[in-house]
Amino acid sequence: MASGSKLWGGRFVGDTDPIMEKFNASIAYDKRMWDADIRGSKAYAKALEKAKLVTAEEKDYILHGMDQIHDEWAKGVFEVKPGDEDIHTANERRLKELIGEPAGKLHTGRSRNDQVVTDMRLWLRDAISILKGNALQLITTMVERAAIDVLFPGYTHMQRAQPIRWSHWILSHAVALSRDVEQLQEINRRVNVLPLGSGAIAGTPFNIDREMLRQAEFLFWASLCLTHLSKMAEDLMLYSTKEFSFLTLSDAYSTGSSLMPQKKNADSLELIRSKAGRVFGRCAGFLMTLKGLPSTYNKDLQEDKEAMFDCFDTVHAVLQVTTGVVSTLKINPSVMEAALSPDMLATDLAYYLVRKGVPFRDAHGISGKAVFLAESKSIPLNQLTVEDLRTASPLFSSDVSAVWDYSSSVEQYSAPGGTAKSSVAAQVEHMRTWLKKQVQ
Amino acid sequence: MASGSKLWGGRFVGDTDPIMEKFNASIAYDKRMWDADIRGSKAYAKALEKAKLVTAEEKDYILHGMDQIHDEWAKGVFEVKPGDEDIHTANERRLKELIGEPAGKLHTGRSRNDQVVTDMRLWLRDAISILKGNALQLITTMVERAAIDVLFPGYTHMQRAQPIRWSHWILSHAVALSRDVEQLQEINRRVNVLPLGSGAIAGTPFNIDREMLRQAEFLFWASLCLTHLSKMAEDLMLYSTKEFSFLTLSDAYSTGSSLMPQKKNADSLELIRSKAGRVFGRCAGFLMTLKGLPSTYNKDLQEDKEAMFDCFDTVHAVLQVTTGVVSTLKINPSVMEAALSPDMLATDLAYYLVRKGVPFRDAHGISGKAVFLAESKSIPLNQLTVEDLRTASPLFSSDVSAVWDYSSSVEQYSAPGGTAKSSVAAQVEHMRTWLKKQVQ
Amino acid sequence: MASGSKLWGGRFVGDTDPIMEKFNASIAYDKRMWDADIRGSKAYAKALEKAKLVTAEEKDYILHGMDQIHDEWAKGVFEVKPGDEDIHTANERRLKELIGEPAGKLHTGRSRNDQVVTDMRLWLRDAISILKGNALQLITTMVERAAIDVLFPGYTHMQRAQPIRWSHWILSHAVALSRDVEQLQEINRRVNVLPLGSGAIAGTPFNIDREMLRQAEFLFWASLCLTHLSKMAEDLMLYSTKEFSFLTLSDAYSTGSSLMPQKKNADSLELIRSKAGRVFGRCAGFLMTLKGLPSTYNKDLQEDKEAMFDCFDTVHAVLQVTTGVVSTLKINPSVMEAALSPDMLATDLAYYLVRKGVPFRDAHGISGKAVFLAESKSIPLNQLTVEDLRTASPLFSSDVSAVWDYSSSVEQYSAPGGTAKSSVAAQVEHMRTWLKKQVQ
Amino acid sequence: MASGSKLWGGRFVGDTDPIMEKFNASIAYDKRMWDADIRGSKAYAKALEKAKLVTAEEKDYILHGMDQIHDEWAKGVFEVKPGDEDIHTANERRLKELIGEPAGKLHTGRSRNDQVVTDMRLWLRDAISILKGNALQLITTMVERAAIDVLFPGYTHMQRAQPIRWSHWILSHAVALSRDVEQLQEINRRVNVLPLGSGAIAGTPFNIDREMLRQAEFLFWASLCLTHLSKMAEDLMLYSTKEFSFLTLSDAYSTGSSLMPQKKNADSLELIRSKAGRVFGRCAGFLMTLKGLPSTYNKDLQEDKEAMFDCFDTVHAVLQVTTGVVSTLKINPSVMEAALSPDMLATDLAYYLVRKGVPFRDAHGISGKAVFLAESKSIPLNQLTVEDLRTASPLFSSDVSAVWDYSSSVEQYSAPGGTAKSSVAAQVEHMRTWLKKQVQ
Repeated sequence: MASGSKLWGGRFVGDTDPIMEKFNASIAYDKRMWDADIRGSKAYAKALEKAKLVTAEEKDYILHGMDQIHDEWAKGVFEVKPGDEDIHTANERRLKELIGEPAGKLHTGRSRNDQVVTDMRLWLRDAISILKGNALQLITTMVERAAIDVLFPGYTHMQRAQPIRWSHWILSHAVALSRDVEQLQEINRRVNVLPLGSGAIAGTPFNIDREMLRQAEFLFWASLCLTHLSKMAEDLMLYSTKEFSFLTLSDAYSTGSSLMPQKKNADSLELIRSKAGRVFGRCAGFLMTLKGLPSTYNKDLQEDKEAMFDCFDTVHAVLQVTTGVVSTLKINPSVMEAALSPDMLATDLAYYLVRKGVPFRDAHGISGKAVFLAESKSIPLNQLTVEDLRTASPLFSSDVSAVWDYSSSVEQYSAPGGTAKSSVAAQVEHMRTWLKKQVQ
Repeated sequence: MASGSKLWGGRFVGDTDPIMEKFNASIAYDKRMWDADIRGSKAYAKALEKAKLVTAEEKDYILHGMDQIHDEWAKGVFEVKPGDEDIHTANERRLKELIGEPAGKLHTGRSRNDQVVTDMRLWLRDAISILKGNALQLITTMVERAAIDVLFPGYTHMQRAQPIRWSHWILSHAVALSRDVEQLQEINRRVNVLPLGSGAIAGTPFNIDREMLRQAEFLFWASLCLTHLSKMAEDLMLYSTKEFSFLTLSDAYSTGSSLMPQKKNADSLELIRSKAGRVFGRCAGFLMTLKGLPSTYNKDLQEDKEAMFDCFDTVHAVLQVTTGVVSTLKINPSVMEAALSPDMLATDLAYYLVRKGVPFRDAHGISGKAVFLAESKSIPLNQLTVEDLRTASPLFSSDVSAVWDYSSSVEQYSAPGGTAKSSVAAQVEHMRTWLKKQVQ
Repeated sequence: MASGSKLWGGRFVGDTDPIMEKFNASIAYDKRMWDADIRGSKAYAKALEKAKLVTAEEKDYILHGMDQIHDEWAKGVFEVKPGDEDIHTANERRLKELIGEPAGKLHTGRSRNDQVVTDMRLWLRDAISILKGNALQLITTMVERAAIDVLFPGYTHMQRAQPIRWSHWILSHAVALSRDVEQLQEINRRVNVLPLGSGAIAGTPFNIDREMLRQAEFLFWASLCLTHLSKMAEDLMLYSTKEFSFLTLSDAYSTGSSLMPQKKNADSLELIRSKAGRVFGRCAGFLMTLKGLPSTYNKDLQEDKEAMFDCFDTVHAVLQVTTGVVSTLKINPSVMEAALSPDMLATDLAYYLVRKGVPFRDAHGISGKAVFLAESKSIPLNQLTVEDLRTASPLFSSDVSAVWDYSSSVEQYSAPGGTAKSSVAAQVEHMRTWLKKQVQ
Repeated sequence: MASGSKLWGGRFVGDTDPIMEKFNASIAYDKRMWDADIRGSKAYAKALEKAKLVTAEEKDYILHGMDQIHDEWAKGVFEVKPGDEDIHTANERRLKELIGEPAGKLHTGRSRNDQVVTDMRLWLRDAISILKGNALQLITTMVERAAIDVLFPGYTHMQRAQPIRWSHWILSHAVALSRDVEQLQEINRRVNVLPLGSGAIAGTPFNIDREMLRQAEFLFWASLCLTHLSKMAEDLMLYSTKEFSFLTLSDAYSTGSSLMPQKKNADSLELIRSKAGRVFGRCAGFLMTLKGLPSTYNKDLQEDKEAMFDCFDTVHAVLQVTTGVVSTLKINPSVMEAALSPDMLATDLAYYLVRKGVPFRDAHGISGKAVFLAESKSIPLNQLTVEDLRTASPLFSSDVSAVWDYSSSVEQYSAPGGTAKSSVAAQVEHMRTWLKKQVQ
């Protein structure tokens, strides 16, 4: 189309190549900021009146026009026309149709870049608020699901390590997520600070750089949050294999195979796991785009929007689906408890010796020998006789039998954050209090 | 919706969470493979007949039904219904509506994963062919634009280095792009090889892994190709600043500012530069998604499609816009030539001494001293008198004046790939021959 | 070597493959945490005494032994022996050589993972403190260099936009860096919080996940900080091309060419620009490593250290070199001012009409037409006669001549953050106050 | 140090900042190219003689001097001196010490950038040859380990899918790796092609860009190869959990816990899995560094070397460790076979119906109902009576019992690449032939 009708067309004579026009246009995706754009323009109109750059009457025309445009978008009847290269152009074009000349005054001292930045800030504020709500709901669900009291193997390196409480496992992820929420709020605080030196009217081009880094922070937050959830999903996926069988996923979050009738796949968990890659890819792409640009606005920065929207949509969906998965999964306590095995108490066996004065490092070695002995005999560790154990250390005596108790083993870890009953209860309490504070 | 109506619903009793349903569904984007899906199913129906798993009549029903579905998509009247989670389900559902029972036979011995893989291969083959065409057009344009014979400064480290031909500069990018095309063809060759051991009927689940790495290769190809174009765009952006003024971009590939009436921004070049980030982000995200997955199909792999489509669309647009930019830019020969300065012949001054028997390293040092002397006197290097030069080396005599000639300087580089007139002409010839071979 | 002598060797009978041993070992790089490891172990020995797990005498032995080890490292005489797979093993092995049996008690209730995490926290705290110091020095330098009062073109899209102060440009980067410092302090705050629930003795394996995300935050901080500096480096590189000639880099931060005697390359700036890629690559690699891991410790997490060390070293060097570059660069005020051109006042021309009641959007169009007219006549914008201007709008009269003044143009932007003299002075003051607060 | 003694110091007067000097220097890592640098210089000296730029005698001096330098490096006595900023400077400096003036002639018409590029090409050629050897050894090992004939569950979505042969699983990874080898050879072919137009003497600055993209290809190859191995490692890690117990890793590739005496961790596999992240991070960092650079040499490109070296070292170690792991792991056939369950034959049950004329899609649904019925009754699928089965379809009769045979189930997949005995044998044969061709 002829540049003459563009916001910037005065000095241009040639027409724009239609492919270039499409390449350049952002209306297809930035129209979702229509509400933020209208709110921003209304606030700006009021500032213009204060600065005496529009009259009270003109301001009212603008506000009224903007309200009409709001209605059109809300009702889905706003018509995007050829030449509306972005949401700002579209709304301004429509305003002019509705109120005529005063529309032209709305852009006094405001560049489109200022407008883009303002709209994005308003949009991001809403987005953060929604994600915070989603995350709180997931945390609440996790805390509720910590109610079941059952022991099962804690793993390190995917190998059975020590007995832990199920509630301890789920709370560890709830706590991690609560930190994600706290960090999101820090980003929010920074989003809400008005750019230093952007007065009512005159903006400064260097604010652009600051806003972009703020957005990059959000993209990275999304990456970290989903990386964290990818780890929880991996745990749950392991636990729901046939071989572990600790959990059964609800049918609502499973799908089948078009080939194999018996399959029940944990698609929901796989999707959750996969999205960390997607979101981080957006973050990586945006950082790579930013790298080495000269300061102030460059068109490259237009890449921010699709990245932001996609990351929001993805985290939004992942948090909701995870909430659904966690709230409906069925745990299988008997299988979990059956998976505990005496060798997981080998550390306790070492502590038994420590209590008899053996330095831990030596006690560890002795206990290791006992494990090896039991393996050689193909018997569980707790079925070694006291005589067997004495080949490893003369300090073993019949009181060693007290070691072989999973429940008392976990009760040793009663420090804050530990897996003892009291400690887990304190964590639940702590999280409940924290949750209450968040929604106030 | 009830799982009962899903392709895999036999053993499921619960309903799927609607958010999960949306999260899981890919129809919104994979429907663009409708044509590939139909072609794949038609080929499969024929294979089933050969294997005597459907009758000739059944095969005809299927082919005919598929043709009808093709028409519906082509005319834009195909109706996606709730429960059509992907393009494969949608087409199969429609086939059943059209031809009834034989539709159910089409999936004998074929998993949806096989189908996804086949469709993607067919789609990618087309995509590669289109991109190859776009790249060839860009190369052709570059070779045409090599016709102008003008010298200008070659830069290294963004600093003036030695005089080169404009045509040498543009050909260097054309040659680079020709290698991108050759690599794309290598990928195409691999895409066209039928997976080892995927017989007509029985697939093997490990092929999935191979296909995913093939796709990752395409994503990386796109990243490298756009990284290359980002460098060309950066060159052009520098050349079109007011300060360099070597080039003027056509209005068709420039935009203005909504605030500053005098601005003419090289938005097209900035967008080209930015897309390397976007595309590499997709590649990074996909690799991160793949990393550490167990082998065979996992739902995580669904991330491939949006990445593939977006990279294709982006490279497709970038190549076309770059062609437009290159074919319409106006170069300013007088400014380019005026930018040549005698200090860019300092290497020639060193060679003058080499010809008189001075080892290059010493000659370099002497020439450097001459440069310093000229700077101290604030005069151009070629205005040093022979006496001045003799303070650096006694070997200088009046024949040194022959050094100060840009044209003869560039003619020294007549080896293949050099910047001499004959060498550039040979490169043009080489590229024309190469282009002819590509379209045969 | 035989596993028997490893910290964990009790139950193992086979020897470790030497390639695996090297693959597994981290001593080559984690030895740089020797000081943190010693500090951590000393604190732990005191905690063990409080918990009555070692006697006061044993604790003293341990502390004394650790002090000796400290001396050995500090003097560069500590001998790493075969089998010292990491710094923790090396120090513990040495402690045992020095004090015998009590050394074995130091590891009661502490896993190596706890130790790794503690050491990394201590190391990171120091690292952050050093980087903060480096950044403050750079900011101080920038604020000092804001003293020069000269106007030059502000650019957007690499095209001349509006006149700005040099000091405004440099302060914009100083302010951005001050935010980087503030964010680094937030990370520090989180590093200093003791892990919830890691009591004096019993750790909880899920803390590992939290620490890893904390480290990822640091890696991303480094990426953002260097991305920001890459943009400043790009600005400076442009300004120091022959074509712009706004700046001359000190020889101390330039290098020459081994081929072209006249070259003076801004290698320092190119290295600064490049490091954003390097550091982000580390961040990307680490996130990709984390993705999809099951929770708690997995050996994959060993990747954290080289990434952390390399990012620290890189940011450390970049901040120092940037300080050197900024403090020694010579700006060329006359060239800068000469680069201002009347078309950069086209926005002011539009404001002239706004003051006469024309809506901004129309005024923008009229001013654009004036720019086009001047270009057609090949004259500067300010040399259009009033008659010329009237062909664009009848509102122009002789008072338009007041528009053509760069100094009064910039004085319009006196809001906080603006480019007016008073505004820049306020920013300098603001930054000085901020700097004072940081070092208190 | 004073720039005067640098290769490029003629025109410089100031000294270089020592931090900048260190920042700029690459000798610490590029010295590992000493051999490639010497080979390159010797070849260049011969070319100079042909071009009559050095005499035969001078050439001999240079060759002889270079041989002496080779000896010094090989014996570990070469002394790097202050001012040796890179390997090229160091070798040239030493040559001058050894042979005096003719050393200065070696650099006629050759820039350091040409030298860097040549050295890197020579180094990369060697590196590729080594990695190819490592990969062939791993493939050979895998093919050998395919000898064991045992059935076990094939998984998709980490859920048991259909019975497959162990040899089928391991061959699938061998085949994938063979394609990695083929691709490495393609890169090698491109590395070996002499740059178009780099004649004996005059290089062209644009070759730099081409070489960088070539290197990026190698980095991406490394990423894809390790991503693939990360997937195999994940499979093996699952198989070696207590819960699966299909495999026992050799002690040589396992490590223990410093806290828990019973632990045996698959550290080798975790390290293999983790390295995909590391290597891809290097690739991502390098691409980000390249993005948006102007063409020809920029100092940013110095980032290539550490990335290349680290990726080579990492892939080199991973391939060797993986070979060790695979050659020594012990598989547990009885556990593997015991993990097969009748529901994994549900697809066969559907095929039973297909053979009786039921369309596959319907047969799938019926079989799914049978699975549900068995689950409701808590009995294995093969223990449903014919009466039970008839509630799902009247077509079931007593011959259904033939379905419940794992061995005959796998024999159905006898197409190339399938899991039938004959098919696997053909793949082994195919791989053996392929391997023989590689070492010829």
